[in-house]
Amino acid sequence: MAAQKPSIPKGTRDFGPDEMLRRNYIFNTIQDVFIKYGYQPLETPAMENLGTLLGKYGEEGDKLLFRILNSGDFFSKVATGDEEVIDSSKLASIISEKGLKYDLTVPFARYVVQHRNEITFPFKRYQIQPVWRADRPQKGRYREFYQCDVDVIGSKSLLSEIELVQIADEVFKKLGLKILIKINNRKVLAGISELMGQSEQMMKITIAIDKIEKIGLEKVNQELLEAGIPKGSIEKLQPILTFEGTSIEKLELLSGLLSSSEIGMQGVNELEAVLDYLSPFELESEIQIDLSLARGLNYYTGAIIEIASKDMEIGSICGGGRYDDLTGIFGLNDVSGVGISFGADRIYDVMLQSDLFPKELAQTTQLMFVNFGEEEEKHCLTILKKVRAVGISAELYPDRAKMKKQMSYANSKNVHFVALVGQDEMLGGFITLRNMKNGDQEKLNVEELISKLSHH
Amino acid sequence: MAAQKPSIPKGTRDFGPDEMLRRNYIFNTIQDVFIKYGYQPLETPAMENLGTLLGKYGEEGDKLLFRILNSGDFFSKVATGDEEVIDSSKLASIISEKGLKYDLTVPFARYVVQHRNEITFPFKRYQIQPVWRADRPQKGRYREFYQCDVDVIGSKSLLSEIELVQIADEVFKKLGLKILIKINNRKVLAGISELMGQSEQMMKITIAIDKIEKIGLEKVNQELLEAGIPKGSIEKLQPILTFEGTSIEKLELLSGLLSSSEIGMQGVNELEAVLDYLSPFELESEIQIDLSLARGLNYYTGAIIEIASKDMEIGSICGGGRYDDLTGIFGLNDVSGVGISFGADRIYDVMLQSDLFPKELAQTTQLMFVNFGEEEEKHCLTILKKVRAVGISAELYPDRAKMKKQMSYANSKNVHFVALVGQDEMLGGFITLRNMKNGDQEKLNVEELISKLSHH
Repeated sequence: MAAQKPSIPKGTRDFGPDEMLRRNYIFNTIQDVFIKYGYQPLETPAMENLGTLLGKYGEEGDKLLFRILNSGDFFSKVATGDEEVIDSSKLASIISEKGLKYDLTVPFARYVVQHRNEITFPFKRYQIQPVWRADRPQKGRYREFYQCDVDVIGSKSLLSEIELVQIADEVFKKLGLKILIKINNRKVLAGISELMGQSEQMMKITIAIDKIEKIGLEKVNQELLEAGIPKGSIEKLQPILTFEGTSIEKLELLSGLLSSSEIGMQGVNELEAVLDYLSPFELESEIQIDLSLARGLNYYTGAIIEIASKDMEIGSICGGGRYDDLTGIFGLNDVSGVGISFGADRIYDVMLQSDLFPKELAQTTQLMFVNFGEEEEKHCLTILKKVRAVGISAELYPDRAKMKKQMSYANSKNVHFVALVGQDEMLGGFITLRNMKNGDQEKLNVEELISKLSHH
Repeated sequence: MAAQKPSIPKGTRDFGPDEMLRRNYIFNTIQDVFIKYGYQPLETPAMENLGTLLGKYGEEGDKLLFRILNSGDFFSKVATGDEEVIDSSKLASIISEKGLKYDLTVPFARYVVQHRNEITFPFKRYQIQPVWRADRPQKGRYREFYQCDVDVIGSKSLLSEIELVQIADEVFKKLGLKILIKINNRKVLAGISELMGQSEQMMKITIAIDKIEKIGLEKVNQELLEAGIPKGSIEKLQPILTFEGTSIEKLELLSGLLSSSEIGMQGVNELEAVLDYLSPFELESEIQIDLSLARGLNYYTGAIIEIASKDMEIGSICGGGRYDDLTGIFGLNDVSGVGISFGADRIYDVMLQSDLFPKELAQTTQLMFVNFGEEEEKHCLTILKKVRAVGISAELYPDRAKMKKQMSYANSKNVHFVALVGQDEMLGGFITLRNMKNGDQEKLNVEELISKLSHH
């Protein structure tokens, strides 16, 4: 067979040992916090039936789904004679019934409905898994990436929103990232649409407002105008979009403007309660109400949260909100949920650029035995067994190679200590231990070796 | 939108909290052993280019690949006029360029070749990831399942085979599974083919022998005959297939029979060396040479290993071997490797049936605060913060629900302790703590609470 030049699909990545240690550091930190707040693990399959996924992420999202070809003779299902009129999207729906999951929220909603009789609500779950999107790859955007989701489903209590803010604060504090937590409420956005006399157009308004950071106030107004929102209505929006002040001042502004909107005032009260409950706690992060925060996804109905890094401009590194109707599409109504999702890949990029990873991430090998030959191999294997029995990570270089090669292997693997056991050592019943950091050498017996490495 | 009845693709599974705790117990146990033996983590993408996967698993394997549909207007690539003569396999190759990975070994070989200049050899890596096969689902066989692979690549030393046997022994000892480790060597099988005068037919002979446990001696002989192996040659195989004896007796038999086959004797010597090196160690598992062990995959060239559970008949729960040419197809020759793969899903099934999981797997929540109302909520949140600060997993029930409902939630989540903090407790500055196992209640201040839970 001719040799193939090896490569991987664009937008995907291999993670070698160094990257894995850093990634696991992020995942473990996040997971430990989730567990400490009483969340339970869940995993769902990589593939879902297309019926579960389609229509949940908007038209654009449908196009970004990776579809899996049916096995076997799928083409026989295309009726003969049809071929001439067929196009890609029609064909795709005939020959493909499954897709790779696009996020963790929709599969979670599907899981909750499917297992509703086994679940005790409120159900607090976390889920750390990869998702796939056929997006155009670019810096910080991949076709396979991990989401770390944490949700409470089956409770309307604002305590969940408060808890999620605490979780985000603690995760980023532990990781050493400085962040800004922006919160808003979809009910406030509904109230604003009411104020504008444009309740029906809430989604359009929301989508336009959402772009303000990217495209600026002027273009947002233009987009609203083009979307058919009357000039008078757009004018009523201006005091809100241009207002600068503290979160408390923003709440005061809204209380005045939205006093006649029932849903708007609900949103204001919810925002107020979240800030009130959080006020006694000294959060590490800055938290502020951001009235231009809308978040694109249709399914949010209450609080919306988005977190930005202060160290690097890379877009949102965590975000989420409350959804009241998500399980409804799968046949289970009136189950409110709220959750946030950490973008591990972007967090990785920020931490790497800002040099935030601890210098000493868990080593795989603490101790390497140099290989001097058959007799020494057998001798070293018995010592290795004792060393590993107490949990020390250790190995014997497998080949009888030159010392230089063996040492360079130990160096490249960041091994802390190298054990030299040749004829002298075997006869004398000791081990020559070299500290790879400073070159120090000492003679130890097995017990001393174990004691030294256990306390290192 | 009409409600959809939620379901997942056949052969795939959701893993709820209880299953996740048990699965993570298996993964963590395996991973800890891998790390202790000096292996480093690696992850590769879920999808690979089809060129990487096709032709690596035989014709049958190609059919079992899950293929991913190209995005966009893929059908335009099918030339007009072609539609009438097109069939499924032709179409598949036009409209699909990627597939889900079928195992971890081939992507690993691809990784090694692609990153050869960054890797210091020998490279000891482990990889714990899901793989996908469009196999017919049945008991113990899934379409998405995890493999836990551990390989050494870039060394021909038999110390690696020895190490892998030790690793398997230690993993299954820790998990509490009784196992039988069967080993053989492809070079012995090559020698046997030589002895039969059928060197060219080694793969056919190997594949037939491989089935002996499933279909019995007679049918294996019949299959060989049908494959065109002469009767005389098949007769020469009989003493080997019917021989019963210890591993040492088997080696003696082979030394006699294969003395004129160079490759055969190499295999015998390798088997002998592995057993010799392992002999001083008291392995927990039984290890025996099994001359009928062949393992289907084409790429093995030396040692082959397969592990069966003694607790349950479920096929192999771990297996692997040495491969000399795997990276060759990607353009890197002369890199020998050896590895084994643990089948986490089957191990799970055996452990569940044999009740081998520890009774107390890590809890998510140690302590739950009952929710008595707004004032109490705020009070409990401040206690919660202190409790979590020392690493105790704790939560406040989010709703002001009836006591019975809150207690039943705590029970279903296996929470150890419930804290009752109402008006009396708030005024008195104490917490009423209920032990959910025995119903005992006691009054504690925050420091006493933390001290009690830290030592629990």
